[in-house]
Amino acid sequence: MPKDVMRSLQLNDQGQLRHFLSLDNLPGALLTEILDTADSFLEVGARAVKKVPLLRGKTVCNVFFENSTRTRTTFELAAQRLSADVISLNVSTSSTSKGETLFDTLRNLEAMAADMFVVRHSDSGAAHFIAEHVCPNVAIINGGDGRHAHPTQGMLDMLTIRRHKGQFENLSVAIVGDILHSRVARSNMLALKALGCPDIRVIGPKTLLPVGVEQYGVRVYNDLSEGLKDVDVVIMLRLQRERMQGGLLPSEGEFYRLYGLTEQRLRHAKPDAIVMHPGPINRGVEIESAVADGPQSVILNQVTYGIAIRMAVLSMAMSGQTAQRQMNQDAEEHA
Amino acid sequence: MPKDVMRSLQLNDQGQLRHFLSLDNLPGALLTEILDTADSFLEVGARAVKKVPLLRGKTVCNVFFENSTRTRTTFELAAQRLSADVISLNVSTSSTSKGETLFDTLRNLEAMAADMFVVRHSDSGAAHFIAEHVCPNVAIINGGDGRHAHPTQGMLDMLTIRRHKGQFENLSVAIVGDILHSRVARSNMLALKALGCPDIRVIGPKTLLPVGVEQYGVRVYNDLSEGLKDVDVVIMLRLQRERMQGGLLPSEGEFYRLYGLTEQRLRHAKPDAIVMHPGPINRGVEIESAVADGPQSVILNQVTYGIAIRMAVLSMAMSGQTAQRQMNQDAEEHA
Amino acid sequence: MPKDVMRSLQLNDQGQLRHFLSLDNLPGALLTEILDTADSFLEVGARAVKKVPLLRGKTVCNVFFENSTRTRTTFELAAQRLSADVISLNVSTSSTSKGETLFDTLRNLEAMAADMFVVRHSDSGAAHFIAEHVCPNVAIINGGDGRHAHPTQGMLDMLTIRRHKGQFENLSVAIVGDILHSRVARSNMLALKALGCPDIRVIGPKTLLPVGVEQYGVRVYNDLSEGLKDVDVVIMLRLQRERMQGGLLPSEGEFYRLYGLTEQRLRHAKPDAIVMHPGPINRGVEIESAVADGPQSVILNQVTYGIAIRMAVLSMAMSGQTAQRQMNQDAEEHA
Repeated sequence: MPKDVMRSLQLNDQGQLRHFLSLDNLPGALLTEILDTADSFLEVGARAVKKVPLLRGKTVCNVFFENSTRTRTTFELAAQRLSADVISLNVSTSSTSKGETLFDTLRNLEAMAADMFVVRHSDSGAAHFIAEHVCPNVAIINGGDGRHAHPTQGMLDMLTIRRHKGQFENLSVAIVGDILHSRVARSNMLALKALGCPDIRVIGPKTLLPVGVEQYGVRVYNDLSEGLKDVDVVIMLRLQRERMQGGLLPSEGEFYRLYGLTEQRLRHAKPDAIVMHPGPINRGVEIESAVADGPQSVILNQVTYGIAIRMAVLSMAMSGQTAQRQMNQDAEEHA
Repeated sequence: MPKDVMRSLQLNDQGQLRHFLSLDNLPGALLTEILDTADSFLEVGARAVKKVPLLRGKTVCNVFFENSTRTRTTFELAAQRLSADVISLNVSTSSTSKGETLFDTLRNLEAMAADMFVVRHSDSGAAHFIAEHVCPNVAIINGGDGRHAHPTQGMLDMLTIRRHKGQFENLSVAIVGDILHSRVARSNMLALKALGCPDIRVIGPKTLLPVGVEQYGVRVYNDLSEGLKDVDVVIMLRLQRERMQGGLLPSEGEFYRLYGLTEQRLRHAKPDAIVMHPGPINRGVEIESAVADGPQSVILNQVTYGIAIRMAVLSMAMSGQTAQRQMNQDAEEHA
Repeated sequence: MPKDVMRSLQLNDQGQLRHFLSLDNLPGALLTEILDTADSFLEVGARAVKKVPLLRGKTVCNVFFENSTRTRTTFELAAQRLSADVISLNVSTSSTSKGETLFDTLRNLEAMAADMFVVRHSDSGAAHFIAEHVCPNVAIINGGDGRHAHPTQGMLDMLTIRRHKGQFENLSVAIVGDILHSRVARSNMLALKALGCPDIRVIGPKTLLPVGVEQYGVRVYNDLSEGLKDVDVVIMLRLQRERMQGGLLPSEGEFYRLYGLTEQRLRHAKPDAIVMHPGPINRGVEIESAVADGPQSVILNQVTYGIAIRMAVLSMAMSGQTAQRQMNQDAEEHA
């Protein structure tokens, strides 16, 4: 999809968020607005997330073509905190088994008065397709698609960095591990770039780096200690063992020996560097327990911020979609 | 069950709805009241369904002995729009596996302070049995039982017809396809009759028509073009492939050739005829995509109206059941 | 775990309930407070349970490592009646399958802003472990662990006795059947003792009585008629057929012949004795239908009271946990 089409699909005629599909080409100002909105949902000084009436009377429908308890739970919690009603559907096991097409399933859900879909699908671009061709009047939120994008994860990582480091302008950020199979890595590179981070590094073995990763404006390292030198932020990735196949890949022991984040290796980063991980973590595979549970780890903070980010995206897209429907209606009445 | 027993089971001592089990013998005036109530839940000119506080503080329990994601979802949404709390139980996989009887499972749910059960069961008459013998003080809603009845589907079809045609008195309505295996067909014939529709036709091959279907006061056609002549409403049925067995039944290709609704065949009906289908549709089996997605199709409107009908039935039965409990209590205090 | 450690784990610094893990060593005054609170949630003279806004804006998370539809449903209903948001997770089938540890799963849920966990686990002491070592700042409610404890069931039995008998001081209570495999029996013996019941009897075959059961201050009977003599309360236990193994155990027919509660045998108890059972009942195995459905049975009342007890425990633990967090914060600011 051409980049300007992608952007116009996600924004309404006034430039407000309408579908949240990927971070490609979303303007930095909009990303900042998402971060500011999410900030407003976090209690001052506390771990808790506020309950607000922003989506009272609205229905959020989790449409999961691929099972993910963690993602489903975080979106359900975010919708509840916004006072929305929530319906969760595991579509793979429902009426599509009666021979109904994806198209019909979604159009039916729309007709049931759902205001918003959180879509999880293993195919890259499924959420885009739905927003463009199936249900353009329902706000579509991408809850993760194939290897392509996991944009709410990307934004919660940005919120984590901003809350701990204050800004992006002078930061060095390293993303470490299985870049190739990670939808998080791609979302993070795009978001960091858009928010003005000057030094983005990816660190991993050649077999786990995508061809042409330099196009994202990142520096590539194959040596962990070298790549970590003086960074402010270390983002460890989960070793996607379930997606790996073939004999060229490292064993877990080998991976840990070369790329596992230990207390000792973390000393190459700045003393106040923070350590992030999208979870669930593989202790002793990509990260040492002493680091995961240590003073520099912000891994559990990320989980809390994730609820706030999802609340921000849900409420902003609902608002932008409603505004668009009003504009369309006004235009029709004028015509 | 004798007809007057059936009626008295569904109505309270003041003639208000108390259980919604089937359309057999419900007075036309009550059906009209259901349609009026459902109408009041639909936003003027919009696809959306209102959120109202009618059942705030009440608990609706979906008790499904047979899995149906679509029916469960629509009832969950309807209950949420009425501000009720909802619990959904797949009973086939729960404590009945511990050797508990159906009787005990339901009596326990009643004791857990559930105010209303939506029951889905493969046996004809299961909801009646529960209303009569197991939990007479809980409002029972039939969410579909065996081949017998699917009364909320029948009522949403009536709402669809009334909203698009204004009345029933001068209409010709054709029900097409697998009448034999369809609980929708039976509910529709009863409701159309009760609401005063003068010309009800059923169209299908002899092997898919029940013996003695004429008793419902319908005209029978084996030829689609002939049956569709000048009708106002075409109700296509789903070919229940999963319920079919035996060598006398038509193949899908054969069925489509003879009874599939194409644009060309639809021309036999009136030019402003509407096309309905209970869903999920089998594109290219009983209906052509050009018709399903065409200007005469109101298939997605039916889905929206279905939420409003379920809201009407839930709120009216709760109200009638509560009134009955009060009457019983008053009578006890007087005695 | 030493008894004073257990007590201090469950109570906050002001002696209020903070985690509800077991009835071991909870003071009788606290048990009475739970019963009083539960009483306040029951409508006067009616079977219904009130809806109250006590936990509005809070999130209760059902964390079930062992499936139990009945327990999950009752806690969901209780949380809804308190106006809390509810998330239910079957942990055995979720991200632990991605290799995440129990520790990480729970810490993540805590970080998602859950305020309270209802934990069901087959291992004795799982809830204690979580309260002590994993999530001390989240209120933990034990929803049943192994053979050890089922404290909400124990408390609902106490509420049932108090509502029907008014007090505990002069009562004779018999617990009958499979004491050995019953987590209910143990919770009941502890609670009856703490509330001042002077005559607690356990009745069953030697093979179904735990060694040293006398330590709970109970009298042991192997003969049903003798044990039932002049009791005020009969608590029948479910024959846990699924937990039994080995050739020394009685067959169902044999068990019923010796220990099944029939109308005839119930005549040994006082004429106004009540009959209780934790459910689900095995009709004709441990209890005759005529007794289960008879005038002395309070089995369905127990179910209703169970919702009220769970509401009491959830709201009290939330309140005690919140007070503790405030105390900790004040102490930190002072230090």
